[in-house]
Order: sequence, then C-alpha cells, then structure tokens
Amino acid sequence: MSEMQVAALEATGSDFKTFHHTVIKRRELRADDVAIDIKYCGICHSDIAIVEGIDPVFKRPIVPGHEISGVVSAVGEKVTKYKVGDRVGVGCFIDSCGKCKYCLAGEEQFCEKGVISVFVGDDYDGRPTEGGYSQAIVVKERFVLAIPDKLDLAEASPLLCAGITTYNPLKRYGITTGSRVAIVGLGGLGHIATQFASKMGANVTVFGHSETKANEAKQFGASSYEILKTPEDFKRFDGQFDFLLSTVAVKLDWNAYLRLLDVKGIACSVGLPNEDQALNLQVMFDRQNTLTVSNVGGISLTQEMLNFAAEHEVHPKIEMIGIDDVPEAYERILNSDVHYRFVIDMSTLQ
Amino acid sequence: MSEMQVAALEATGSDFKTFHHTVIKRRELRADDVAIDIKYCGICHSDIAIVEGIDPVFKRPIVPGHEISGVVSAVGEKVTKYKVGDRVGVGCFIDSCGKCKYCLAGEEQFCEKGVISVFVGDDYDGRPTEGGYSQAIVVKERFVLAIPDKLDLAEASPLLCAGITTYNPLKRYGITTGSRVAIVGLGGLGHIATQFASKMGANVTVFGHSETKANEAKQFGASSYEILKTPEDFKRFDGQFDFLLSTVAVKLDWNAYLRLLDVKGIACSVGLPNEDQALNLQVMFDRQNTLTVSNVGGISLTQEMLNFAAEHEVHPKIEMIGIDDVPEAYERILNSDVHYRFVIDMSTLQ
Repeated sequence: MSEMQVAALEATGSDFKTFHHTVIKRRELRADDVAIDIKYCGICHSDIAIVEGIDPVFKRPIVPGHEISGVVSAVGEKVTKYKVGDRVGVGCFIDSCGKCKYCLAGEEQFCEKGVISVFVGDDYDGRPTEGGYSQAIVVKERFVLAIPDKLDLAEASPLLCAGITTYNPLKRYGITTGSRVAIVGLGGLGHIATQFASKMGANVTVFGHSETKANEAKQFGASSYEILKTPEDFKRFDGQFDFLLSTVAVKLDWNAYLRLLDVKGIACSVGLPNEDQALNLQVMFDRQNTLTVSNVGGISLTQEMLNFAAEHEVHPKIEMIGIDDVPEAYERILNSDVHYRFVIDMSTLQ
Repeated sequence: MSEMQVAALEATGSDFKTFHHTVIKRRELRADDVAIDIKYCGICHSDIAIVEGIDPVFKRPIVPGHEISGVVSAVGEKVTKYKVGDRVGVGCFIDSCGKCKYCLAGEEQFCEKGVISVFVGDDYDGRPTEGGYSQAIVVKERFVLAIPDKLDLAEASPLLCAGITTYNPLKRYGITTGSRVAIVGLGGLGHIATQFASKMGANVTVFGHSETKANEAKQFGASSYEILKTPEDFKRFDGQFDFLLSTVAVKLDWNAYLRLLDVKGIACSVGLPNEDQALNLQVMFDRQNTLTVSNVGGISLTQEMLNFAAEHEVHPKIEMIGIDDVPEAYERILNSDVHYRFVIDMSTLQ
C-alpha cells in the first residue's frame, strides 16, 4: 500500500477559528503497520491546550486527536494480531524504543528515547505525527488496541485517553472492594473515573460544583454527590477517604482536600492546572498523606482497561458532533458545557 | 515502688528564659512498667516549637524531651523484657490503645484512640505526661526500647526521634544498594539520614547551604555535597534521583527540587515548615513524581532502627551540654548553630 492521502481537520494558530479542512499523507504500510479507517475521535481538554500552544510552542499546523477508534483497513505482512475489519483503537502514543526498561515493563509513556505522541510528535523517521481528526491513520501494530465486541465503537474512543488516565491511578493504588474513594470533578475524566472506581468495588463520593449533576453521578455509580464550599462542608468528610482523585485542572484548596484523607491516604491529580498550588505540608503530616499525579498508562494497561470497561459495562457518556462542530465544541469545553465527552463522527469528514 | 519525686527542667511560657528547675512526680510502678534513670536526653527542634506553643496551645508548664536514654532502675512484676541495669531508650510516645488496626500493625503513631506523647500528652489515667529533661521516667514496657551494646548511650538518644524519623521513610520507600538518594539539609536529621541511606547501600548526595560542611557530609557517607543556588545548579541534577528526603523546616522551591527526581521518583519531607509551599503539579507530571511526608515510626521499627544503627555503626554527632545550657542551646538551634545534635548530660541535673 502506497502513501494514503486522507482528509483531516487542521489548526494553524492559537485560535479555534483557524481550524480548516486539509489533506495529509499517511505513510506507506510497513510490515508491522496497521492501517485504520477512523470512525470516531474524542475531544480531550489537552487537545485544546495544545492547539492554544501552536504558536509559542509547536510552531506548525496541527491535526489533533488522540482518542481514536475505527476499523482495520489493511495490515502489513508481519502483523499477526489484527486483520481487516477488526475494531481497534489508538491512544496518546504510537511508538517507543521498545528496548529500554520502561518499554520492557510496558510503561512506554516513560520511554528513555522518548515516546512518540500520536500528534505534535516527531516520529523516529523524522515525520511530524498527525492525529485523529482525520479519515485514516497508519500505526505500528504494537500500539494498536483491540476494542472488545461489547464496547460501542464511539463510546470506546474517550477510553483511549480519559479512560486510561483514570484507570491507571485507580489500579496502581489498589482500589478494590470497600475502598473509600473521592472523585473531585464530574467531567470527561471524572464521570469515567467514577464508573471505574465503582466497578472496582469502591464506595465512591463525587465532589462537584453543579447541583444538576447529582443524579447522574449516582447513575455513574457514586454513592453520593457533594458540593464542598464552607470549612464545615469539608469538616464533615474529615479523614473519610483512602484515595482522592482530582480530575479538575483548576487551582484547588489542597490544604482542605488533603484533610479528607484517612491515615496513609493518597491524593492523585490527573488534572494539571497551570498555576502553582498552595500546599502546607503540615496538613499531610499526622496522617502521613501523599500527593501524586498520574498521566496515561502503557499499552498493556490500556488494553486491560478496555477489557475491564467491556466486562463491567463502563459507558462514557458522549455527545456526538460533526467535524465542523469542533470549534464550537472547544468553546463549550472551555465553558464546562459538555456532558461528558465530545466525540467526532468521522463520517462527516469528506 | 511508690511515686517518685524527680528533678526536672520545666518551661512555663513561650520563652526559653522561663526554664527553671522543678520537681515532678512519676507514677507508682505498675506491673508492666519500667522505671528508668535518665542519663541523656537529646534536644529536638520540635521541643522548641512546642515550648514556643505553651501559651497559645498547651496552656500549662512543660517538661520537654523525647530522645531519652538511660538505665533501668526498677521493673514491675510482669515485665519480662528488661531487668535492672539494662540500657534502654524512650522516644516520642509512651502508650497507645494496643488494639486498633494500627497498633496491631506496629504503627502506634496512628493509634485510633490517640497515641500518648511522652510530653504534652494526657495519659489514659488523665495525668499530663512529662518528658526527658528529668532524672527519671516510668514507662510501660511495650514502649521501652533496648539500646544495643554497641551503641553509645549518649549517641543513642538522638536516634529515638531524629533517627526513626529518617529511617522510617528510607525503609518504607525501599532504599537499598544503588538507590540514588538526595538529602536536603545537613542538620540534626540530615546527618543521620545521610548515614542511614549510605549504610543501606544508596549513593547519597547532600544538598546543603554551608561550604564548611562538605567534608563532614562525606564522613557521614555522602558521595557528594552540593549547594544549589541557580537554575543551572538544579539543571545539573535534573532527573538524577530516585528519592529525595527534605530534612529542612523552611520554605523550599519544590518546583525546582522535584525536577531532580527521575521517573516515579519520590520526594518526602520530614521537615515541616509552617507556611504554604508553592507547588506546580505539572513539574511532577511527565515523570509521575510523588510528594509525601513522614513522621516517627512505630515501636518495632524504632527497635529495628536502633539495631541497624548498632550493626552498621551509625553515629549521631552530638554536642553534650549541661541542663542549665538548655536555653542557650535552643537559641543556637534557632540560629542553625548546632553540629549536629545537642544532648543533655542528665548528671548535671540535681
């Protein structure tokens, strides 16, 4: 198979209005490559952050998108795991050295040579990588995920980033039956985290800021939904949690939130605000608490997450949009007006 | 044995000048009690913090001291581990419920009923507890530590707090042969931490602020001693450590120090500054770093630490003082003028 010309949506400046249709080239199929017809691509908050960084940081046009689901259209001669017609996904990265201790441990995100991002990356062959707001993509077999039959293909796409980002820390910190878990924020990440934690057996409390979400939080598996405003609100949950997952990218009152943890309780942020947080180490002291962060997981853990989602009926709640709705969707995400993840129907891209 | 009258040094206000000689009573020996003639007591930075907090927080006179070493002078009828003449120590706490999950796990510091501090505590019998700046103390056998023969009795006393405070996190986070450890601060805690980490097999770098300490740092086992001032200084150690232990109680530039950690590297503070720290979670993100704190450990870990110190020849460097030098010693500690731990020779208390 020779180089493919595929339609794509590209941004060229730090403004969503620069999104325009274009045509990109996908590489010739290598022996270990899988060509994928992209059916759906989720929109992640980090897409926006990267588009906004085009001018100062990336200095080149960008085709975003790292929550890709689709169907195999061709495979290289050495590909064994996939065949034409298989339902597959691609997440945040598409190559790594495969030889360093992290790659060998299945933690490609820490690859010593540098993991290759699905977009705004520079591939090992020097080509800039371009993401999922496009009709097709060619990816090395090792970085292609199998979408289990039970998963809806559109619902699967947000799992490739929002799913693994939340599954990873829940798994790493041993969330299980009876764990007392707090989820801060009920958006794209939070509504999936709530489902995962609940299906792992945890007792989940969601801390949000909108009264209207209480019912949905419970549908996602939360045992309660709370809005914390006053010191008395916080006091009510003092020492009540083993694990707190913050999914919000704003400044948090960590000195208050950390007091919600019990002895040896751990707080983990997958939301990454730009500004400094204020943290008094003394609030962590008597209960020996820990504050950490987490990003996406490796390929094997991502596959495990997809299988878990299929088995336990985890359903990202998506709002399907057409390709030309992307700029408006970005606006709405920035206004927290999304329930809970936008997914682009790629059949609208011609 | 009836109640003992023992000489002690007591503070009554938030000023070291209020230290004065007094006489306190130690309880009648119970069946499981050990009476100890105190030979030495270390001075910990937290003694000062507590004395300074007398008026606003504690509102009563205080006999400080939680780094106690001495010799058994009497034992209750059910005591089996100790006999008169044994060399023993007492650390930060002297009782706990003994029944909760933490006590049963040997982590008395988290006792659900509340661990009883050796001073400024209220014992289960309602009596206020009084610490080691005194001639003798009566403590339940379960909270008395055996001082191994190889340990000097005076050198042993700082191990009861400074020692366990630093040993605990080094042990918990698996410091071993080849671990790359950074110790921030070379004072009472730092100089012991450096020895422990080094004897555990780690490659230890000490980050201090006084050129004059470089040689001593190496005597304590550090492979290098560095002073970090400029961003370039920090850059030189970017990603070089698996574990960073901060022993300083001042505001730290955590956004710079956390970048010294490699992938999954952990920073732990045993120093506890009063003020908020500024922390940008993004600096922890790509390497998935963790920030935690640690306090003293339980009794069994404290005994393990003493045995380790004896076996591996860990020597706290002490400056011996008389009881009436305490106020001056406090002043000097506050001026960072201590090399490296003051120990009171209790024979000077009559």
